[in-house]
Order: sequence, then C-alpha cells, then structure tokens
Amino acid sequence: MRYSKLFGKTTQQAPADADSVNARLLTQGGFIQRQLAGVYNFLPLGLRVLKKIQDIIREEINAVEGQEVLMPALTQRENYDITGRSALDILFHLTGHNEAAYVLNQSHEEVVTPLVQRHTLSYRDLPVAVYQIQNKFRNEPRAKSGILRGREFNMKDLYSFHADYADLEAYYERVKAAYFKIYKRLGLGERTVIAFASGGSFSKYSHEFQTLADVGEDTLYVCESCSIGINKEIIEDQKGCPECGNEELVEKRAIEVGNIFKLGTRFTEAFGFSYTDAAGEQKPVEMGCYGIGPSRIMGTLVEVFNDEKGIIWPASVAPFKLHLLTLGMDEAVKEKAEKLYHELISEGVEVLFDDRDESAGKKLNDADLIGIPLRIVMSKRSLENGGVELKRRSEADSQIIPLSELKNHL
Amino acid sequence: MRYSKLFGKTTQQAPADADSVNARLLTQGGFIQRQLAGVYNFLPLGLRVLKKIQDIIREEINAVEGQEVLMPALTQRENYDITGRSALDILFHLTGHNEAAYVLNQSHEEVVTPLVQRHTLSYRDLPVAVYQIQNKFRNEPRAKSGILRGREFNMKDLYSFHADYADLEAYYERVKAAYFKIYKRLGLGERTVIAFASGGSFSKYSHEFQTLADVGEDTLYVCESCSIGINKEIIEDQKGCPECGNEELVEKRAIEVGNIFKLGTRFTEAFGFSYTDAAGEQKPVEMGCYGIGPSRIMGTLVEVFNDEKGIIWPASVAPFKLHLLTLGMDEAVKEKAEKLYHELISEGVEVLFDDRDESAGKKLNDADLIGIPLRIVMSKRSLENGGVELKRRSEADSQIIPLSELKNHL
Repeated sequence: MRYSKLFGKTTQQAPADADSVNARLLTQGGFIQRQLAGVYNFLPLGLRVLKKIQDIIREEINAVEGQEVLMPALTQRENYDITGRSALDILFHLTGHNEAAYVLNQSHEEVVTPLVQRHTLSYRDLPVAVYQIQNKFRNEPRAKSGILRGREFNMKDLYSFHADYADLEAYYERVKAAYFKIYKRLGLGERTVIAFASGGSFSKYSHEFQTLADVGEDTLYVCESCSIGINKEIIEDQKGCPECGNEELVEKRAIEVGNIFKLGTRFTEAFGFSYTDAAGEQKPVEMGCYGIGPSRIMGTLVEVFNDEKGIIWPASVAPFKLHLLTLGMDEAVKEKAEKLYHELISEGVEVLFDDRDESAGKKLNDADLIGIPLRIVMSKRSLENGGVELKRRSEADSQIIPLSELKNHL
Repeated sequence: MRYSKLFGKTTQQAPADADSVNARLLTQGGFIQRQLAGVYNFLPLGLRVLKKIQDIIREEINAVEGQEVLMPALTQRENYDITGRSALDILFHLTGHNEAAYVLNQSHEEVVTPLVQRHTLSYRDLPVAVYQIQNKFRNEPRAKSGILRGREFNMKDLYSFHADYADLEAYYERVKAAYFKIYKRLGLGERTVIAFASGGSFSKYSHEFQTLADVGEDTLYVCESCSIGINKEIIEDQKGCPECGNEELVEKRAIEVGNIFKLGTRFTEAFGFSYTDAAGEQKPVEMGCYGIGPSRIMGTLVEVFNDEKGIIWPASVAPFKLHLLTLGMDEAVKEKAEKLYHELISEGVEVLFDDRDESAGKKLNDADLIGIPLRIVMSKRSLENGGVELKRRSEADSQIIPLSELKNHL
C-alpha cells in the first residue's frame, strides 16, 4: 500500500479523548476515528490490525472445535424477559412498528441458547460449541478508555453445551489453554495472568484473563509464584492463592482481556433446554461461555506497547510487516525504491510504502507513530553506504544492510 | 468437515416463513435460522456461503481502489438532523443515558461524509473511495421474503468522493464494470441487467442491478437487444430504451441485487464538506454511493438456483466444493472413505463428509437439499464397479470413475 494513497493519515492534533493513551495514539496514527464516546470508526490501518487479531482468535477457537456462526444484534425483548435480564441497565431498547419490543444484544446467551436448543434433540448432538465474531452494544453510563470500553464494540463469544457438568469442566480447561495460546500469539503472553473472579449466580468462581498494566481499571492480588491473580471483588472471601495457598499477594493494576464462565444450567433451564440421554431420560444441558473482545485487545496492545514516539506493534498483528521509506528527492533513489516495493509485493510481503515528498523528519516521525515493527529507509546516503537502513521499531539502533540481505531480516 | 459434527442439520419441517423459497430451503438445509421476522442467524453452512459472497465483492471493490473501513451501527441522531433524514420511517431510534439520542444506521452517508471530510484537506486527498461490509438496520413495517429484505442485514457500501462531477462520472463507470464482474463471478451474470431507476433528488437516474426472476418484487421493462431495464417507477417519463430508443420493451419481474447513485453534493453540502483546489479556492466535493447486500445476494441465488429437491449452489459460493457420502455399513468402505476424506483435506479441497450411519435415501436427499455442486458417493457397489459415483448437482446423470481420476473432475 502506498501511504500517499492511504485513507487516514497521521495527525499531531490531540483528539477529544486524548486522556486515554490508546485513543490518542490510534487516532493520531490514523487507525481509528471517534464517532461518539465509546463508538469508533476503524480506518484502513485500524481494520487491518483488528482483522489480524480476529484471525488469531478464530484459528485457536476453531482448533478447540468451535464452529463459527453469526447471530444478529437485533432481538426480541421477549428472550430477555425469559431469562429475567430485560431490566439490565446496559441493555439498549428499541421499538419497531406495531410497538414491537426489541433490544440490542449486550451478550448472546438469550439468542444462542434457544438456537442450539432447536438443533439439539438427543445426547448424540452433544457436546457442541459455537462462536461468533460480531459487535455488541452496551448502554454504558460513561464510556471512557478509548476502545477499551465501548458502547459498540467487537467481541468473540463462544458458547459450549454439554451433557453433564464433567464434560463442561473438561471443555472449559481446553478453552483456557486455547486462550493462553491466543495471548501468546498476540504478544501479551508474558504479561497476562489468569485471575479468579466472582462466578456470579452461576458458580463459585469465573476466570478472567488480565494483562498487567498500570493503566488497568482492575485491581488484582497476584501470586507471583503461580502467575495467578485474584480480583479485588473476591479478595475478602479468598485468603491467599487458590492454587498454592501463598498469602503474600502483590497488588497490581490490570486490563481484563477475556473471561470464561461455567454457566451451568442458568440459561438452559430458563429456556427449558434439556436433552434425551441414552436411557431415554430428560436431562438438563450444561453450558459455558467464553469471551474475548478483539477491539479491546487492540486497545490493550497500544496501552502496553508504546513509547513517547508512538505505537510498537507486535509482528503478529501489525498492519504491515514492513514500512519502506524514501528520503530525499533524488530520482534514482525513488526509482530504486519503486523497484524494491514491487519486488516485495510480488513476494507477498505486506509493505507500507511512504512515497510522499515530505521531509525526512515528518516521514520518520510518522513511521514511529504508526509503529510497524520493521523500517527500511532508502536514501542517497544509504545507497552510497551499500544498501538500505534497517531499523526495528523496538530497538534504538539501525544498521545498513545490502539489499540482497533484506530477505534474511524479514 | 464431518457432517456428523456440523452444527445445523437439515430438517424436513417447513419453517414459519416457508412462503419464501429462500427462507424455506436455507432453513431446511441448515444454513439459517430465523430470529424474528427479517432477522436471521447464520449457521456454519450459511456463514460459509455469506463469507464467500463477501470475499468476491471485496476483491472486486479493492480492484477499483476501494479502501476497506468499518463504521459503527450506533450513531448520534444529530448527524441525521443535519441531512434532514432523522424522520425517515425506517430509522431505528434509541435513547442512551442522559437522554442521549442515537440511531442505528440504515445506510452510512451520515457517518462517512464527516469521516472523509475530517481527512480531506486539499485536492491532493481526492479522489478517495472507502467501503465497508457491515450490518444495516431498518425498521421495516413488514419484513418478508426471507433474507431478501431484512430488519438487520449485511451490506457492502462503497462511497466515493471527487474534486468534480466529471471525475465522479468516470469512477461511477468503473464501479459499474466492477459490479458486472461481481455478478458474473456469483453465477448471476447472465440473468442480471442494469436498470434505470429514479435518481431521487440527486440526479436524473440512478442505476439498479436487477436479477430477472419471477419471484422478484420489482417490475422492469426490458430492452432485450441492449439487456437494459427501466424500473416501473420511471416508465411513465421514459418512453423506450434509454440506449437505443427501442419502444418494444418486455415486462419482467426482477430482484434488485445492487444499486449505485451519483449523490453529487447532496450530503457533502449538508456537512459543509468542501476542499481547497490547486488555485486556493473552496470547491464542493462530489460524492457517489454504491451498494450490494451479501445476504440479499445469498437469498437471490437460492431463489434462482433451486429445484424440487433443494438448492443448487454456483461453485464460487458453495459452502464446500465437494460432498462425500458413504452408503451402507461395510467397514472396508468406511475405511476407504476416511482415507479419501483425509487425502482431500490435505490437498486443500473443501469437503463436507457425510459419515453418518443413516439410510442411503436420507443421505442422498440431504445432499440434494444442501446443494453442493459435486457429489461423490462411495459404496460397496461403487467400489466393485471400479471406484466412486460422481454426480453434479446440476445434472441428472451420475458416472462411476476410478478414484485415481477424481482430481481431474474437481
């Protein structure tokens, strides 16, 4: 992609929501644009990152036999009356023609439960796990923290259905392992711990995945030997680490980047969702749910990986693998850069090519702000010195390498 | 994919919306499930088809330099007040905390215009074209026709912005050509004509792409020598074919599968979106919009390609390329089929493997209903006769081919 043609350029102007680091850097970098508090447009650069995050999640959920579906946002309010959740403060209500009462789903238990029920006749249809990657709507009293907490935001939600609680527990452990793989691939593995949180009315605990970060909204008490956290909300009832009993817990701030629940029969009973077992008896269906928000992950990555110059994307989710810049107006340099750009594209390398006639300072600053992991500068000087200047966004030093060696660095 | 594990099996039961052929066959085939009138769940088979349609559209829109973005559904009502469209009957209204007035976008002119405005400073930033593939919401008085007309439905909407009307007209012709490529790749090329329709307050004409089908809601007057239609709404004012003057037009029914508009300055003026030209003068920005609904395309394909047994998918959008069935309980046959299934997968062939212990009749009927273009049956008899039975869904006859020749038929 030529940067000169890209829709959504960098800006030095601080946006209205600049109090949040992710909103400021993503807006200034040309990734997102605020529509209203908690609602964002994703520009081409931002959508590329979001899709890469979604694809990593999709691959790992497919690997635990999740089947992808797509459920609607618009749903009859009746389904929330059945589960007793239609008075939820965050639920958006709408009225259609003839006084039809609708809501916008804030989560999809009220849709997925009757959907799976309709297709589950006997024990042979269980277990089954379905997920979607889709937008949720929540009437947040105060939307803040950029794309960390939105009124409309992207979510991967997986729901599993089981013949008994033991099968739910076994699958829950498989998803837990899949989540750790996801955070590792996203570059968040080392900073992300599993935390015990309230299970609500469903079970003793639920589990959250929490990325340790000073800007986080949540407070955790972390057992540093087990890499396990306890959410502040249950610390009163939970003395010490649930794994090893260690009572020397360290208070830390963290951003919630996922959560998983054993729902048991909370929703299946509300919809009368039971199945016929091998002996012909009706049994309740046990249910689990597992969420990760790709847009929230994107915001978290920016909160965690940045410096005073801009974003530092992990390679796995960077909008492009390589940022190619020309410096100076020398026509021979421009020609050589055009040639390299076309070679890289033909080899399938994702490259952002800053072909603008802008000052060296502007182009280098923009590259730092955008945060692509690898930067290649071609200039008269670099060519005289034998090639191109290569610099990793995460490192301070650059080096001149011959063009012929570029491939070894990709 | 093993059919035994697939979420969403076939059913013979007619759904509530069985008066629409697309809703009946897609529901019975396990592609979709109705949530409420005009709102559908996409099951794994249906989502596969939807994504293939989206990918074809995405490729052709990228080829005319459309840049993909993602705009929100939730938007401040204020933007519709600015364009005078907040009283639109089909607009869903919502109220947030503190009486915040929101709407759900029924189209995105009110979002994309100020978005592009913010990133367009001078003539150097024009032309620019951005698109998204995202869900629209419309408060339809009566939702009918299955997924042809929905309250929540999937849409590709492209918007282009130009320094003058001539540039808009040139780009409009490029998109028109891209649309014809899309319909050709979707298998609808031969049945789809371009039709002249009202340009509303924007221009004399707009253009619709109409797939000829007896079930269509629209009435066209078609010039059979030019393959051009005139929508009934403007036939009074338009005597004869706008291209050749032919007055012998044939009345036909059709399904609208796309439309394109030269909006001119209708929306850019409302938002005060002008640009500075090379001479330093402020000029109005000219705008076009171009829509295709992937979910409506999916419904149209089913309306057009079906027989009394079920759906007949074009290969380009079929959920799988190949439907592999075993008949009978012979263990040697099952083993050979398992081996073939794994070979096909390892070669990257998309195959649906019906590995169930069901009767031959049930499995063959299900295959016809689902409508995958190529069916391979392995049975004791087929193996005795030298291989597998191959049948195309669109043809009546089958043939026995040696396993070694299967690749030549894919």
